[in-house]
Amino acid sequence: MNSGSDGFDGGFLSVAGWSGAAVSCGLKPSGNHDLALLRADEPCAAAAVWTRNELPAAPVVVSREALARERRVRSIVINAGNANALTGRQGLADAREMQRITQELCGGPALVFSTGIIGEPLPMERVRRGIAQAAEDLAPTCPEVADAILTTDSVRKTRALRCSLPASGDAPSRTAVIGGTAKGSGMIHPNMATMLAFVAVDQAIDADALDAILRRAVDASFHEISVDGDTSTNDAVLLVSGAAGGPPIRIGDARLGAVERGITSVMEQLALAIVEDGEGRTRVLRLSVTGAADDAAARRIADSVVRSPLVKTALAGGDPNWGRVLAAAANAGVPLETDGLALRIGGIRVFAAGEVEPGHDREALERAVAGSHVSFDLELNAGEGRARKWTTDLSTEYVRINSEYTT
Amino acid sequence: MNSGSDGFDGGFLSVAGWSGAAVSCGLKPSGNHDLALLRADEPCAAAAVWTRNELPAAPVVVSREALARERRVRSIVINAGNANALTGRQGLADAREMQRITQELCGGPALVFSTGIIGEPLPMERVRRGIAQAAEDLAPTCPEVADAILTTDSVRKTRALRCSLPASGDAPSRTAVIGGTAKGSGMIHPNMATMLAFVAVDQAIDADALDAILRRAVDASFHEISVDGDTSTNDAVLLVSGAAGGPPIRIGDARLGAVERGITSVMEQLALAIVEDGEGRTRVLRLSVTGAADDAAARRIADSVVRSPLVKTALAGGDPNWGRVLAAAANAGVPLETDGLALRIGGIRVFAAGEVEPGHDREALERAVAGSHVSFDLELNAGEGRARKWTTDLSTEYVRINSEYTT
Repeated sequence: MNSGSDGFDGGFLSVAGWSGAAVSCGLKPSGNHDLALLRADEPCAAAAVWTRNELPAAPVVVSREALARERRVRSIVINAGNANALTGRQGLADAREMQRITQELCGGPALVFSTGIIGEPLPMERVRRGIAQAAEDLAPTCPEVADAILTTDSVRKTRALRCSLPASGDAPSRTAVIGGTAKGSGMIHPNMATMLAFVAVDQAIDADALDAILRRAVDASFHEISVDGDTSTNDAVLLVSGAAGGPPIRIGDARLGAVERGITSVMEQLALAIVEDGEGRTRVLRLSVTGAADDAAARRIADSVVRSPLVKTALAGGDPNWGRVLAAAANAGVPLETDGLALRIGGIRVFAAGEVEPGHDREALERAVAGSHVSFDLELNAGEGRARKWTTDLSTEYVRINSEYTT
Repeated sequence: MNSGSDGFDGGFLSVAGWSGAAVSCGLKPSGNHDLALLRADEPCAAAAVWTRNELPAAPVVVSREALARERRVRSIVINAGNANALTGRQGLADAREMQRITQELCGGPALVFSTGIIGEPLPMERVRRGIAQAAEDLAPTCPEVADAILTTDSVRKTRALRCSLPASGDAPSRTAVIGGTAKGSGMIHPNMATMLAFVAVDQAIDADALDAILRRAVDASFHEISVDGDTSTNDAVLLVSGAAGGPPIRIGDARLGAVERGITSVMEQLALAIVEDGEGRTRVLRLSVTGAADDAAARRIADSVVRSPLVKTALAGGDPNWGRVLAAAANAGVPLETDGLALRIGGIRVFAAGEVEPGHDREALERAVAGSHVSFDLELNAGEGRARKWTTDLSTEYVRINSEYTT
């Protein structure tokens, strides 16, 4: 992932045309901010990617329906501390009520998002008061929005950047602003784990173009991270386009390339921020798989490695245990040719042509896995397929967090 | 899994016609027994199930070839402390040499098995001395065989039972003896994880019948357990038939049913012993999935639950977190109907018809997950498919063992 060279300190609310508010309404036992509102001056084109969990939470069901119908959004309500998941008919009614209240107070279409404990009914009296309070507090800047959506996260996750758009037709060259705010630190795995991300761009973009950009950008960012292989009931990435004036940018417009690069960069940075804040993580692993028969095979192998508890515990221990890496790669159900395999750890070749690399520098290898960021590069020499994944180690702290915290 | 009511204290060597020996030849830093020989009076019919890891270790390659060709075995050498896996051409030559030496000293066909650290060359001088010593020590009883094949295991794993065979044709009714010895405590998952199991029956059984029995028995035992979802490079279940005299029992013989029940029972008990000794386990979970569209769908759902770090850490914490169980079940890619779902934990219904069970006894639920053995029963109400899995919790101790021990 590349950091945008034109990044600046900001998040979703850095994008003109949006205001926000955050309140504490009693959903988090800590008393921290737990409900946020985001409101646009006008309804704007939006696209989203949703969890593929087979038991999606009530807010996912409600917002997915609304967005499929409207393809636009004016207001967004997000609560943390209670996921409103596996809550049956009452949960669905509660999510619809959150949507309706938000729409009445802030304008529609309204979307609703929740994260937190599964299976507990939403304390709706608190939620109603919280939305009403937040609607009164809306302001162009509100850093606490980034706090209000967190659960076990230890840091805010916001990114913003400016990018230059070339002139196109009658439109002169101009600068676009893209900002995003996310949450997530456990239950993270491709296909949307417990994470929420809200990304805005200030340019008016046609809904079809926005949807296509979102799908590619998510593949190159949130779908490349894994903390624990679990996929949650709630999660979503929402991309909204703003109203910079003029007709919306449509598919085929030369400016979309620059917009897409900017959006991808913000999403990559948010995804990496989630891994960096992975529950109990002491190290971050970047895994690259190249030379597979195709990209799908490379992804299956990468997935098997980043899900392996033995790889992740070795990483926690700072143990350059390349045997576990290859054994996990070989558990993906993808045929491997031993003689074609090569593995580098921290750039040091440890295995090639079916054998341990003779005379590799073991001390350098120990140092390579002792730092906070470790890389594995696995070459299969069987084709052009490639995949990239980021994950965390599996530490005793991860276990402690997840055996003591009821989510 | 049922315990055989006619079980007795014994293992593989309880079966007549076999002798064994165990030595310490310097493969384990601890100095414990690390090499075992097993030898039959005569070559006997054998069948095996092998790891499906795409990078099988050298001894797996060598023994699989030999058994496919011969379908019989006379002698078996097993070492622990070094897996001879990912060791390239030299590893293959070393495995073949172990096989050749064993065959010369004990008679053939000979099979070779290894378990332990991956990627290190076998110290062959020690192995040669060890085999020679063990060949001199062969005796009808040798409890240390069960120790010599262990790695991170904390206890020996042996089971034996007697079962009555009915009369058949000219053969009078008689008693069969079945004995097994296994190892395994980490890297355990269906399709043969880091585990070895050697099971003998004293009846002469045709190789085709033996192979069919083995496959069904493994499906009902070793393929139902998971410790950490990892599948190793080395592992195997070997079933050998003895020489009780008379013609071998063939497919269609009425006595095979009793033999198969006995073999299945021994394998179930060995599999459960492996889970009970799972690395860092504080609890054992029995998961039952019923009412799936078919057995394959039930197995996918069960697999997703027993692999979920969030389910396994909640189990470690004694947290009756049914939301995580359902969320993990919904990550298998199998469509679920919320309204049909019902979940019982320790027999207590917590979720039914799409809703949390009103008024379920939370204190009883806490007690149900506080013990050493916990059960989850998930009913889908979508068909007749069913699956059963056993797994361990994911504790800080599991992480400690696997981040400090280089395997």
